[in-house]
Amino acid sequence: MDEPVVYLNGAFVPESQATISVFDRGFRLGDAVFDTARTFRHRPYKLREHLERLYRSLRYVRLDPGLTLEEMEAITLEVVRRNVPRLQAHDDVWIHQIVSRGPLRRGGPPTVVILTEPLPFASFARYYKQGVSLITPSVRHVPPQTVEPRAKTVSRLHLVLAELEVQQHDPDAYALLLDLEGRVTEYTSGNLFIVRDGELVTPVVRSGLAGIARATVLELAEELGIAAHEADLTPYDVYNADEAFLTSTSKCILPVARLNGVRIGTRIPGPLTRRLLETWSARVEVDIVAQALSHLPPAERAALEQEKG
Amino acid sequence: MDEPVVYLNGAFVPESQATISVFDRGFRLGDAVFDTARTFRHRPYKLREHLERLYRSLRYVRLDPGLTLEEMEAITLEVVRRNVPRLQAHDDVWIHQIVSRGPLRRGGPPTVVILTEPLPFASFARYYKQGVSLITPSVRHVPPQTVEPRAKTVSRLHLVLAELEVQQHDPDAYALLLDLEGRVTEYTSGNLFIVRDGELVTPVVRSGLAGIARATVLELAEELGIAAHEADLTPYDVYNADEAFLTSTSKCILPVARLNGVRIGTRIPGPLTRRLLETWSARVEVDIVAQALSHLPPAERAALEQEKG
Amino acid sequence: MDEPVVYLNGAFVPESQATISVFDRGFRLGDAVFDTARTFRHRPYKLREHLERLYRSLRYVRLDPGLTLEEMEAITLEVVRRNVPRLQAHDDVWIHQIVSRGPLRRGGPPTVVILTEPLPFASFARYYKQGVSLITPSVRHVPPQTVEPRAKTVSRLHLVLAELEVQQHDPDAYALLLDLEGRVTEYTSGNLFIVRDGELVTPVVRSGLAGIARATVLELAEELGIAAHEADLTPYDVYNADEAFLTSTSKCILPVARLNGVRIGTRIPGPLTRRLLETWSARVEVDIVAQALSHLPPAERAALEQEKG
Amino acid sequence: MDEPVVYLNGAFVPESQATISVFDRGFRLGDAVFDTARTFRHRPYKLREHLERLYRSLRYVRLDPGLTLEEMEAITLEVVRRNVPRLQAHDDVWIHQIVSRGPLRRGGPPTVVILTEPLPFASFARYYKQGVSLITPSVRHVPPQTVEPRAKTVSRLHLVLAELEVQQHDPDAYALLLDLEGRVTEYTSGNLFIVRDGELVTPVVRSGLAGIARATVLELAEELGIAAHEADLTPYDVYNADEAFLTSTSKCILPVARLNGVRIGTRIPGPLTRRLLETWSARVEVDIVAQALSHLPPAERAALEQEKG
Amino acid sequence: MDEPVVYLNGAFVPESQATISVFDRGFRLGDAVFDTARTFRHRPYKLREHLERLYRSLRYVRLDPGLTLEEMEAITLEVVRRNVPRLQAHDDVWIHQIVSRGPLRRGGPPTVVILTEPLPFASFARYYKQGVSLITPSVRHVPPQTVEPRAKTVSRLHLVLAELEVQQHDPDAYALLLDLEGRVTEYTSGNLFIVRDGELVTPVVRSGLAGIARATVLELAEELGIAAHEADLTPYDVYNADEAFLTSTSKCILPVARLNGVRIGTRIPGPLTRRLLETWSARVEVDIVAQALSHLPPAERAALEQEKG
Amino acid sequence: MDEPVVYLNGAFVPESQATISVFDRGFRLGDAVFDTARTFRHRPYKLREHLERLYRSLRYVRLDPGLTLEEMEAITLEVVRRNVPRLQAHDDVWIHQIVSRGPLRRGGPPTVVILTEPLPFASFARYYKQGVSLITPSVRHVPPQTVEPRAKTVSRLHLVLAELEVQQHDPDAYALLLDLEGRVTEYTSGNLFIVRDGELVTPVVRSGLAGIARATVLELAEELGIAAHEADLTPYDVYNADEAFLTSTSKCILPVARLNGVRIGTRIPGPLTRRLLETWSARVEVDIVAQALSHLPPAERAALEQEKG
Repeated sequence: MDEPVVYLNGAFVPESQATISVFDRGFRLGDAVFDTARTFRHRPYKLREHLERLYRSLRYVRLDPGLTLEEMEAITLEVVRRNVPRLQAHDDVWIHQIVSRGPLRRGGPPTVVILTEPLPFASFARYYKQGVSLITPSVRHVPPQTVEPRAKTVSRLHLVLAELEVQQHDPDAYALLLDLEGRVTEYTSGNLFIVRDGELVTPVVRSGLAGIARATVLELAEELGIAAHEADLTPYDVYNADEAFLTSTSKCILPVARLNGVRIGTRIPGPLTRRLLETWSARVEVDIVAQALSHLPPAERAALEQEKG
Repeated sequence: MDEPVVYLNGAFVPESQATISVFDRGFRLGDAVFDTARTFRHRPYKLREHLERLYRSLRYVRLDPGLTLEEMEAITLEVVRRNVPRLQAHDDVWIHQIVSRGPLRRGGPPTVVILTEPLPFASFARYYKQGVSLITPSVRHVPPQTVEPRAKTVSRLHLVLAELEVQQHDPDAYALLLDLEGRVTEYTSGNLFIVRDGELVTPVVRSGLAGIARATVLELAEELGIAAHEADLTPYDVYNADEAFLTSTSKCILPVARLNGVRIGTRIPGPLTRRLLETWSARVEVDIVAQALSHLPPAERAALEQEKG
Repeated sequence: MDEPVVYLNGAFVPESQATISVFDRGFRLGDAVFDTARTFRHRPYKLREHLERLYRSLRYVRLDPGLTLEEMEAITLEVVRRNVPRLQAHDDVWIHQIVSRGPLRRGGPPTVVILTEPLPFASFARYYKQGVSLITPSVRHVPPQTVEPRAKTVSRLHLVLAELEVQQHDPDAYALLLDLEGRVTEYTSGNLFIVRDGELVTPVVRSGLAGIARATVLELAEELGIAAHEADLTPYDVYNADEAFLTSTSKCILPVARLNGVRIGTRIPGPLTRRLLETWSARVEVDIVAQALSHLPPAERAALEQEKG
Repeated sequence: MDEPVVYLNGAFVPESQATISVFDRGFRLGDAVFDTARTFRHRPYKLREHLERLYRSLRYVRLDPGLTLEEMEAITLEVVRRNVPRLQAHDDVWIHQIVSRGPLRRGGPPTVVILTEPLPFASFARYYKQGVSLITPSVRHVPPQTVEPRAKTVSRLHLVLAELEVQQHDPDAYALLLDLEGRVTEYTSGNLFIVRDGELVTPVVRSGLAGIARATVLELAEELGIAAHEADLTPYDVYNADEAFLTSTSKCILPVARLNGVRIGTRIPGPLTRRLLETWSARVEVDIVAQALSHLPPAERAALEQEKG
Repeated sequence: MDEPVVYLNGAFVPESQATISVFDRGFRLGDAVFDTARTFRHRPYKLREHLERLYRSLRYVRLDPGLTLEEMEAITLEVVRRNVPRLQAHDDVWIHQIVSRGPLRRGGPPTVVILTEPLPFASFARYYKQGVSLITPSVRHVPPQTVEPRAKTVSRLHLVLAELEVQQHDPDAYALLLDLEGRVTEYTSGNLFIVRDGELVTPVVRSGLAGIARATVLELAEELGIAAHEADLTPYDVYNADEAFLTSTSKCILPVARLNGVRIGTRIPGPLTRRLLETWSARVEVDIVAQALSHLPPAERAALEQEKG
Repeated sequence: MDEPVVYLNGAFVPESQATISVFDRGFRLGDAVFDTARTFRHRPYKLREHLERLYRSLRYVRLDPGLTLEEMEAITLEVVRRNVPRLQAHDDVWIHQIVSRGPLRRGGPPTVVILTEPLPFASFARYYKQGVSLITPSVRHVPPQTVEPRAKTVSRLHLVLAELEVQQHDPDAYALLLDLEGRVTEYTSGNLFIVRDGELVTPVVRSGLAGIARATVLELAEELGIAAHEADLTPYDVYNADEAFLTSTSKCILPVARLNGVRIGTRIPGPLTRRLLETWSARVEVDIVAQALSHLPPAERAALEQEKG
């Protein structure tokens, strides 16, 4: 077999044959939820935490996937087991579960999809050295009385619109969304931390997903004796931070270089960001930065290594 | 061939084979828009207006479908032409175009789907006689700084959640959404009108789609010399209306019986609602109510005919 | 004398003669505040805390009752003393003080009413076994820039409207109000707690009364070594709670079975809820649940005892 | 008989005996609605319009008064008929209907009260000559998703608080409330109009009662060929108006002298305000200003007559 | 004399000597208002309308300039008279009045400044041919309950921040601000119009200055028989407009090419925009576009003339 | 030399010659930031903290002052050194830095002004004995999505308007601003603390400056073992506080007597307020209250000393 397999409603099928009906409510109404874990060294990381969050999303949208969490876990592990042999040593994968409410106007069973996808390290590797640029778009995050932002749903067009707006301005920038009151929430794929007076501060999880990478950083901080707390933040706080970084499943911890053109801190990564990256790397026995850089062309990698942060 | 055809990215395929990849951005990110027209007497109605609205939605989400409006129209007519022979005389169809941004992380072409679907008259026919019950859910409509509510996008989970909440309370009720300021917007599939002192009033099109059925009612009202205007409405206005009705592509004009249990007006349909329904019926040469009722079992139909509104 | 006495502006009168003028500002303008304590075993419970809260409400509305807190307390105790002999052993009473600004447009003295009322155990007893159903109505709690929600005022029509809306959907359900930002506040007569990962969480007291039963639960939790904190909660948090319960003067702690039809937790009451109920019962030397159940007809009580939560 | 009669739940009783139970939901929960008409020359004015508004308020709070509008009208006329003989020639009365949901927790019939009260001309007469001072308090009007501001309910504490705040600053000033977005709504007992470039402008009836005096002014304006329209107004518009006046049942049209200390216009009343007052006076065959002034002590009246506006 | 004169608190001084104290409240607290008119053919245009608006701003901030409107006008005309001789034929000037509350903590007289400044045609001339790019920044316009946006005050930092944010993304773009509800307001120096179905639509003047250029366009439209109305607009409306243009004192009518990268309409200027520009030019006997282009270097001008819109 | 010197763009000039151009962006656009420290016993206090805050404001508005913080500090100390000899022993000064973006439309260097100003003790001394009156104006504080309230900018007209509104009501009162959600923020020149059950509570620093005097109070509280925390406060909390006080650079700690006419606490200053004032006085070796009182005329001082708080 030369393509990854996908679990689709009870069967394991090659990726190119993993299709759903144009009548599926996920495709027609955004009526689906998902979650995304990853592997380190080809082994799933915190899969259970991700599945628990998936089941919280399912409960929020009143959707019974027809599988217990344990069954979902077992199938997920089987999908990973089947797809891992195709990977190169320095690769790792995203692990996605997507559950939709099934066919429109037909009352059928839900659609359950489980698949893996190689982590696109090349697309973000250089930001470990250069830091990423953030822009606050004019689009605002969805308020909880419309759709709970902590539920991971596929009705994500506002995030797509935020990204399109930001990339129109700078194709390399990421969108940092504000909520309707002007508070910082999250970027399109994860959370933000700032460092201020030697402490970590991250927005209150009110709008925005309670990221599992975010939780990992809070654990690491506790381990390292670094104080960390939640607060309502605005762009003013980010502009004046000593350091800032993003957290996400794929990137773990990604240094931020600027927000709306304002340079944050003086080095990339900042000292505390670097320490957290090293501690996380040690925990998973993967040099997170080195792995990402290994996916770049050698010349680009060499150039990055020479830049000073 | 014994199933309807669907246009899918350049080909006409049987409905059961019309599938999209699980990597499609419509399925994974709600990153798609659509529109829905219908036939009367098996002929498309105001197709051009629907396509113009589709192209407004596309422009809003910066999505180039790869087809001109005229090409989209020609293909749509072809889909209808192929599917109409399968219909019974008293049937009519919805005509849907759905356009997503194509595959995730692969930069491919957009996905274009055009399909027809028999109008589900049996599901709403009795409301022409009994009126439908509306409930205002606690879920609020999406604000325009998150996603423009007038763009018809598939990121519609808030509407699904509103419907689930309402149907938990009363399986036959429809959800009438309020916006974040508490103003009436629209129900999950169309617009609301009230009659007050002999005039039509409908919410300002600010949140909520500028429905084409709504526009038809405004044309009919002008034709009949009935004053009509837009205003900010709250539930108080609906409770105290002389009549109320919904407009949608499939139902044209559907009388409302109550909102949150409060009876609206004294007859179903109210006299002005009836007049609008008759005028629309004359215009399309279809008795709108009779067509819907003809899809009910004879006994149910007879019982309804005997009820007084 | 065979009816309870009521204190009314300096006199003790039989309940049926306790009337106020139709010109009273409480009746005409909602210009009055109140508080409600209760007895356990016919003895007032935390009366002083309730009176302190009453005086905070009075200060908020700039109303001088013409009595010091100590005088109000003494009269209250006298009302209780006079009315308690009429009670059966398993009864207990609510103790209400109501203070209005007195006659409209006449500048008279305030109206002070103190009365007791038998606790209506029969109306809520079964929820200790079955849990109560909550619904979030479309009506929102009053914002503090209109009227401070923590002041207990008789301008409570929004709570009545919330209750009417909810009971239209389900006559047995209670209304859990959201605020204008979509955050959970309180139910119409008290506070909400959820249990998450072995900890108690209750909405920040920002909108909603700082309930005295809520404070009691926080004391009990501290006594039992259960962590408890305030947070901004949305329905998502309640759907995904391990347990949930309401607190109020009359019900102490009432298990929640579902919110908007979504089942909360797996047992009624949940283990932590049960422990809190038992600890409170011990503290007041009343089996709270048994007392409530004793007011049900024996057959209903027996049926409830056999249900498993 | 030497006191006015009051209609109370089926009986006509002397005012001093018109009392309601301390268990009435109007007194305890603000669960009541009302309306207020008046007489001119001892004859009710636009009573039918007031009753229609009362029934809209009743429908909004789902309260059936147990009387048809026609019955309510007949009883009202009887109350007026009985009380009018006690009036002096230059007096007129307010006519109030108040309907509460009846006794708390006892499921009884609603409470219906109908009464008259002499118009307190002396309290506002001088403002016809001097203009009234308005202040915008920090308290905001109630939003429609809490309680519809157009329903006349007795849950009016926010209006009382606004008045207390304003009268703390200036005992003679009236409170002009803003809504949560900072738009001008109404003053505590009626509506505001400004004159700008020879046209009348009044806030959109969104928050605030659709006053019947306001409607009368719109009729008079049409009669006189004065353009009038609704708009969203802020204090900026009032400060810069050529004239401003209030409308209410008791005062008809009351000139405004200043808002927050800023003088409005140059004469009291302004020319257009004066014309409207005269036209209204002609319509009801009462010199509105003269009648009010006739209730002042002669010396005060003389002083006022000499002031130039 | 070889520099323009400035009127400063009673004296006419050379521009380089026109200075105010560092204790001036305008400099220290943003406690000042201003207005800006212009000349056509060296003659002031609609100066009276501008002064009336200045006096509305003054009244709003309770600032008495110590000069009547007529005196302010006379001095303004004198400043223009003195400065015009220095202009070249194709030049025109801005005319600014700035009035601050004078010295901080010293209770002195207000500061009144009147000056002219050559219109910077070279900075915007090319947009008549190419259209200008708009971007909606994440910064929101000030709400009227903070500072009335229609008052022209010097507390304009939010507009500066909006401009900085936008120019960080594209140095040539202008900032189109949204209000807190996500509605389009104005750009940093004037108003927006869109053309839709042959009609002009411009945002309701609620947030944003009631521009005098905007008023001129409305007059021209009436003259030309073009329907024009106010409405609440969002970016969706602008993306889907047939044409769009800005209005301001200096630019009169400036075609818009795109919003957030989305191309508006098909030609620059659109046919209706062109007609309005020509009619305005005729009215003031200045070819508005030609005058602006005449300030460009000949090569740039020639290149622009050859571009097709 | 008989006047204070001011540092202005590189030079030390006499105060009366310290002027800026009428084209300065600070004067014309409110495009400037500032900070304000003070001396105790003629020595700067916490100058470094003030400068760090100044640089946070500068970074927020993307303004490079052309001086490092250390250079700014050195110049500031020099300004103080030159001006101190002119002071009497019981005087102290404010130290202001103001930085604007320089000339309008000319791309010049920023304007940097550093100056001192005698503290106006006489204007507030009596409030140490009598307490100050606060009023909540109808004007709301600026939201962070318009301008960050924590950045000290000169676009402060909303604060001026709040003050004008309040002083119209009571010339001696200070304005306590609410934010758009009705939460207490700050007064026009500093922060608010309340004392409740022996603990200090101060509004969350979300809207409003993170005052350095506020930070000092938090340090003093820690030193004294007094619990202190941040919370969302509304007027209800202030009315019901045991004590309340303001903090600011000039006043350190100023007792509050009432809010909107409601008396706060029973003594001025309250016991905890007094203890904090004494501890601060000890820390700076200045009797803060005595110093302020020493600037009053002896008779007024004597009268105040005799009042009991």
